[in-house]
Amino acid sequence: MKPFLFSAVSLLLPALCSAQSTPAEVAAELVSRARTGSDAMALIGSLTTDVGPRQAGSENEKRAAAWAQQRFKELGADRVWVETFSLTNGWARGIERAEVLSPALQPLAVTALGGSTATPPEGLVAEIALFTNYDGLLAAPAGSLAKKIAVVTQPMPRRRDGSGYHATGKIRSSGPAEASRRGAIAYLCRSLATDNHRLPHTGQTDYRDATRIPAAALSVPDALLLERLAAEGAPVRIKLVLTPHDLGPVTSQNVTAEFKGRERPEEIVVLGAHLDSWDLGTGALDDGVGVAIVMAAAKLVRELPHPPRRTIRVVLFGAEEPGLLGGAAYAQAHHSELSHYVLVAEPDEGQGPVYRLRTGVANTNEPSLKAIVAALAPLGISLGDNHALGDSDVRYLARGGVPTVALDLDGTDYFDFHHTADDTLDKISPERIGQTTAAYAVLAYLAAELGGDYRAP
Amino acid sequence: MKPFLFSAVSLLLPALCSAQSTPAEVAAELVSRARTGSDAMALIGSLTTDVGPRQAGSENEKRAAAWAQQRFKELGADRVWVETFSLTNGWARGIERAEVLSPALQPLAVTALGGSTATPPEGLVAEIALFTNYDGLLAAPAGSLAKKIAVVTQPMPRRRDGSGYHATGKIRSSGPAEASRRGAIAYLCRSLATDNHRLPHTGQTDYRDATRIPAAALSVPDALLLERLAAEGAPVRIKLVLTPHDLGPVTSQNVTAEFKGRERPEEIVVLGAHLDSWDLGTGALDDGVGVAIVMAAAKLVRELPHPPRRTIRVVLFGAEEPGLLGGAAYAQAHHSELSHYVLVAEPDEGQGPVYRLRTGVANTNEPSLKAIVAALAPLGISLGDNHALGDSDVRYLARGGVPTVALDLDGTDYFDFHHTADDTLDKISPERIGQTTAAYAVLAYLAAELGGDYRAP
Repeated sequence: MKPFLFSAVSLLLPALCSAQSTPAEVAAELVSRARTGSDAMALIGSLTTDVGPRQAGSENEKRAAAWAQQRFKELGADRVWVETFSLTNGWARGIERAEVLSPALQPLAVTALGGSTATPPEGLVAEIALFTNYDGLLAAPAGSLAKKIAVVTQPMPRRRDGSGYHATGKIRSSGPAEASRRGAIAYLCRSLATDNHRLPHTGQTDYRDATRIPAAALSVPDALLLERLAAEGAPVRIKLVLTPHDLGPVTSQNVTAEFKGRERPEEIVVLGAHLDSWDLGTGALDDGVGVAIVMAAAKLVRELPHPPRRTIRVVLFGAEEPGLLGGAAYAQAHHSELSHYVLVAEPDEGQGPVYRLRTGVANTNEPSLKAIVAALAPLGISLGDNHALGDSDVRYLARGGVPTVALDLDGTDYFDFHHTADDTLDKISPERIGQTTAAYAVLAYLAAELGGDYRAP
Repeated sequence: MKPFLFSAVSLLLPALCSAQSTPAEVAAELVSRARTGSDAMALIGSLTTDVGPRQAGSENEKRAAAWAQQRFKELGADRVWVETFSLTNGWARGIERAEVLSPALQPLAVTALGGSTATPPEGLVAEIALFTNYDGLLAAPAGSLAKKIAVVTQPMPRRRDGSGYHATGKIRSSGPAEASRRGAIAYLCRSLATDNHRLPHTGQTDYRDATRIPAAALSVPDALLLERLAAEGAPVRIKLVLTPHDLGPVTSQNVTAEFKGRERPEEIVVLGAHLDSWDLGTGALDDGVGVAIVMAAAKLVRELPHPPRRTIRVVLFGAEEPGLLGGAAYAQAHHSELSHYVLVAEPDEGQGPVYRLRTGVANTNEPSLKAIVAALAPLGISLGDNHALGDSDVRYLARGGVPTVALDLDGTDYFDFHHTADDTLDKISPERIGQTTAAYAVLAYLAAELGGDYRAP
């Protein structure tokens, strides 16, 4: 692993950030530094170049954990540690090929959904039953899909807040099980995607108690092709070859770094992100950029002449993609200390910029919240509702009673790349992650410095 | 093959297009109809859906030829025929996989260049020698690339006139041979591409007298990744698996349709396009859209109450992609009649719109040219130089002395999709091909109706 050269902005630290500066002045200085000279771009460049894809339980995920430990030490963390946990089953992609055999010979761009079982090695050939919306599949009678490949081609809407993904998520997560229950021998869905590139979007599926059948996502142009062929009326026959396999028990790990508070070290502000990624791309946007942002934000705070009052803890979770497993393991292992957690936040919807702050706190009149909102306003961030629940890995902390803040990231183009081979460094914008890093640095600093109580009613 | 329903705009033909209309009035009416109701969208939809990819010499190319014959008959051609010709060698893609083994484990998105030879079935592993520009490769001494995989990562500039492609074309066409001459055991180049998607761009290469070595294109993000890894200084080792193979002698075909002139049927205006495509996408932009435009333009002229004076011939060439083979075969077979060809034009750079008319004629003062320029002006088309040489398939006709017109297509985004799996129907804009169809209909009609002589000095 190549030595990493962190930037040395602290040498340039202006006199403003002295012990005499007010918290608001320090926050403004953090914004300025995050937007012009944080380590976020260098970190995401290194993670995606020197490690690359890092699927849950894989050797590359372990290499990413070693990378993160080393970086945390270099950036001056007071303590860095790794907590290992078990996954019942690892999963590895195999060959994935599909083609229309009739009425026209057309290759299809497909990718297996995470957890999919395999076809026979030589593939399977069957006629499709195509549903242009998911409700059509759910309305199909039991047994009606026998010997068929069920296909759902409902599109996902493009929305800034990512709600299009959540609105159509069941097509991927539950579609294979629903098709299986109706007798289908395989399942294809239009990718949960807002792009029109020939790159299918993977993601975990969940068979629950249904018989596992081979399940894959089609790229958007391929879903449209099947719609056109089906509309012509002749039977559409497809050959599908998928050879993923279960790996049995594997381990993953959470990597945690702590930056001790100067007055109340036992009170902890938590920033999260997930270190694992899908295997197709390099996990630049999902969630390498989140990793880079929280690491760079912590470093900016670390460089202040005086640490804030409270401790800042950065947790890089493992095994998010197969179902938030690192987040669950962390919450379980740290159950007894959750009452000391002041606030938790995690970026896991791309690079931003942040456009809104939502809270999930007991008292929205807490004065430090107003200070945080005021410090974020120059970044174009407005105040939203108090219904934040904790996204991704930190969901279990929020459920465990930890107050949460959601810094909502602009996700307008996130689902053009999400879970595809296209999730690579060249999609990252220094300006966008500069703004997002600024927001996280300000949030972490003020929550740690101002001593607000977000649990008090 | 599904029955094709051509639109019935002729029923709606306004009184304007009567025998009393002037050619300029008829041209204006053709523009109006092309922009609102031509068959171009339906034709490109059918070709890409009902046939799909159609590689030179393949069964799908033959199916495309049958499709074209049928369509030409339905749209009222006076004569439709097929001329078969031989290719020394067909070529078929096989498995294509590559990955960086060290310093990081990173899969690479690659696709074999047309004509590439195979690696051993288990692949080859070697260190790379990376050149960020092609001149660097050319400057490498003989033998200096022994046991190496040569990699060239020079980018292609985005330009409206497509000149970026021509400026960097040698990286693909001659790069493998140049690498081979310097001892390299394989060759990778950054795709000739203006996009940043994880879809490599294929295209023909030409080894000439050099030893054939496995040769593939990298997607742009993968070329950037190799640049970053190489810049870190440690040796970069790659595993490459390519299993394309030569097919030996195959046949292709040109499909021609003729719409007889009412007064001088032996004088022929030729519109060309190529029916074959690369295998990765469905050849929507390259050159299905050209096929659709010239077919739809011919139908618009055919629907006029009176055919124009001269004959319009539409030639859909086979086997353009491996090296303009259909165009060469056509020019050879029709050598004796080339003196009767009035003018030739071909769209083969995407969907347009047309922004400029260039000529390759003996007399730029020919009055009918001024009429053509005037009729195209409302479409936003300006007059360029007289250096048009005949692009693609019609190059051999131009070399044989046939006057030529280039209706230059806006190629700003063409090389985002060119020769990739992404060359699919959803990239086609009805507005853009409406304008392009209008330009071709006007050109064909006026060249056939006005009787201009483009050969006279």
